[in-house]
Amino acid sequence: MKKHNFSAGPSILPQEVLEKASAAVLDFNGIGLSLLEISHRSKDFVAVMDEVRTIVKRLMKLGDDYEVLFLQGGASLQFAMVPYNLLSTNGKAAYTDTGVWASGAIKEAKKIGQVEVVGSSKDKNYSYIPKDISVDSSFDYFHCTSNNTIYGTQIKDFPKVDTRLVCDMSSDIFSRELDFTKFDLIYAGAQKNMGPAGTTLVVVKKEILGKTGRDMPTYFDYQLHIEKESMLNTPPVFSIYTSLLTLQWLEKNGGIAGAEKRNIAKAELLYKEIDNNPLFVGLAAKEDRSLMNVSFKLTDENKKEAFDTAWKNAGISGLNGHRTTGGYRASLYNALPIESVQVLVDVMKSIS
Amino acid sequence: MKKHNFSAGPSILPQEVLEKASAAVLDFNGIGLSLLEISHRSKDFVAVMDEVRTIVKRLMKLGDDYEVLFLQGGASLQFAMVPYNLLSTNGKAAYTDTGVWASGAIKEAKKIGQVEVVGSSKDKNYSYIPKDISVDSSFDYFHCTSNNTIYGTQIKDFPKVDTRLVCDMSSDIFSRELDFTKFDLIYAGAQKNMGPAGTTLVVVKKEILGKTGRDMPTYFDYQLHIEKESMLNTPPVFSIYTSLLTLQWLEKNGGIAGAEKRNIAKAELLYKEIDNNPLFVGLAAKEDRSLMNVSFKLTDENKKEAFDTAWKNAGISGLNGHRTTGGYRASLYNALPIESVQVLVDVMKSIS
Repeated sequence: MKKHNFSAGPSILPQEVLEKASAAVLDFNGIGLSLLEISHRSKDFVAVMDEVRTIVKRLMKLGDDYEVLFLQGGASLQFAMVPYNLLSTNGKAAYTDTGVWASGAIKEAKKIGQVEVVGSSKDKNYSYIPKDISVDSSFDYFHCTSNNTIYGTQIKDFPKVDTRLVCDMSSDIFSRELDFTKFDLIYAGAQKNMGPAGTTLVVVKKEILGKTGRDMPTYFDYQLHIEKESMLNTPPVFSIYTSLLTLQWLEKNGGIAGAEKRNIAKAELLYKEIDNNPLFVGLAAKEDRSLMNVSFKLTDENKKEAFDTAWKNAGISGLNGHRTTGGYRASLYNALPIESVQVLVDVMKSIS
Repeated sequence: MKKHNFSAGPSILPQEVLEKASAAVLDFNGIGLSLLEISHRSKDFVAVMDEVRTIVKRLMKLGDDYEVLFLQGGASLQFAMVPYNLLSTNGKAAYTDTGVWASGAIKEAKKIGQVEVVGSSKDKNYSYIPKDISVDSSFDYFHCTSNNTIYGTQIKDFPKVDTRLVCDMSSDIFSRELDFTKFDLIYAGAQKNMGPAGTTLVVVKKEILGKTGRDMPTYFDYQLHIEKESMLNTPPVFSIYTSLLTLQWLEKNGGIAGAEKRNIAKAELLYKEIDNNPLFVGLAAKEDRSLMNVSFKLTDENKKEAFDTAWKNAGISGLNGHRTTGGYRASLYNALPIESVQVLVDVMKSIS
């Protein structure tokens, strides 16, 4: 039996994507070779790269002023690449600190230039999103993390800032409709809503690049990656192809609007149970609750054994909370069916 | 019919590896979940990481003074990471320039510190390996590229240098027996002899690290990656697992010694035909000929159409030379069976 997979990432992918990816490992496009053993410059793989760039822009409704890159090194490498490419030597950048990953981005940027933290929720273990952020045009850019996987918080209204808007969307990319033209740079590790671990999506407005005059490691230079069409070096072929399959699945299933509708339904079902069941309490501030990661805990620790046994017996996996928050975390990424949420809710109802 | 795959990389993998990797995409270890959709910190994947580190050290006969890392960003990112970690601010490094990739490494190191090129074969389009290299202890390290995929050259005797020995073995790792304890740092993109694109192996002698005092991007710090056991961020799960499968296959088939024996037999078969057949000529200096990549061309360009048609009809793929050298290149990586080489040789014999 297939598990009900609530893993925070790497996380659930659509079954048809897994089947197609599995088949391509044996024979890709009927060419008599595996996807893993052909040149990244072969026409079959160049077509994959072209298609994945096109579908990202189509899903996000972006025009020719944006470029799409598939890189390596995860969000962690982006933490350094963003300031190298956007923070001028005597400029400054504004960041919000909404969790472990956001503070990793801040720490990295501080190695490179001047950084001001213009909002933080560290005082309450990152259980809310700081509001009333104001960033004027004296900053080179403003950086935020749209969804905080560990704590289950998510930015609902992005601050209106008077500078470039940069966002780490690793854990909620392609999960809800946004006006993506408001963003100047978006990056996201693939391993939540987009595909397997091993590649990082970067969507960047071309006109913001090439202005800092910084010397930087070759791999850090977005302009070079654009010029080389994400083939500055051998790209992570399998991760990119499987991301393409996932985005094709998304497009066939109503695109981002369709995913958002399903994600809202799943989250409402689970939050309703958390709010109505006296045995559970949510960890995140209600107005900042994430549609992607639902963090909660038991109100009575004596029920822990019963609850843990019950959800495991129901075929649920990946429900344990992060070690820094404790409790539970149900990740409801795009590929998770509402039926899995219903199974969890039924288990929650069964505990008393 | 499966092709005879002479691709220079990403390149042929053993059929049983492809079958196991394909199956793991559907269900990993019988856990009811895909390898792609489980946490990298789950016990099943942590076991993969432990095992792959162990097998690398066992195959290379290395002890506890070495650490094994699986990173991202390819050799290209290593070009920057090596000098950041090993080149002190007022020190200097020695490099040999044996091709496009070696000169990429040199260019990158020059951004970071003082570099001396102590040997180059650029004068003859990199068709040989520069000899009589001498590097004294005033250098922080000596960097070389063991095998030059594009030109078909390979270092047979590594120079005896009086400093740390650093080697990019991307295209011949695990292909021949070497005394790996002579090396202080070895790196290699997986996509030739070790697995699919998407991960980079780094083998490093611990004691050489932490001596430059340089501030560097977090992702560049080998010591941090060691501390985090290659999980500083989400690792490229699929590429690492498939590399493990390939190394297990190698170990079952006689380890590096077994691979070397097969690689010598394949290379001898092909070079013999090149030398005996007046229609073909090798591109690399005879004493520096690679066991991995055999570069050659026709002596009579009028035969091109006939030869190209014949090898394509024989089910051969990936034989075209690199655009900078022209001609042909047959890559004979570990997973290529000698039967494929025989098919190519038979085609060469059939042209007249």
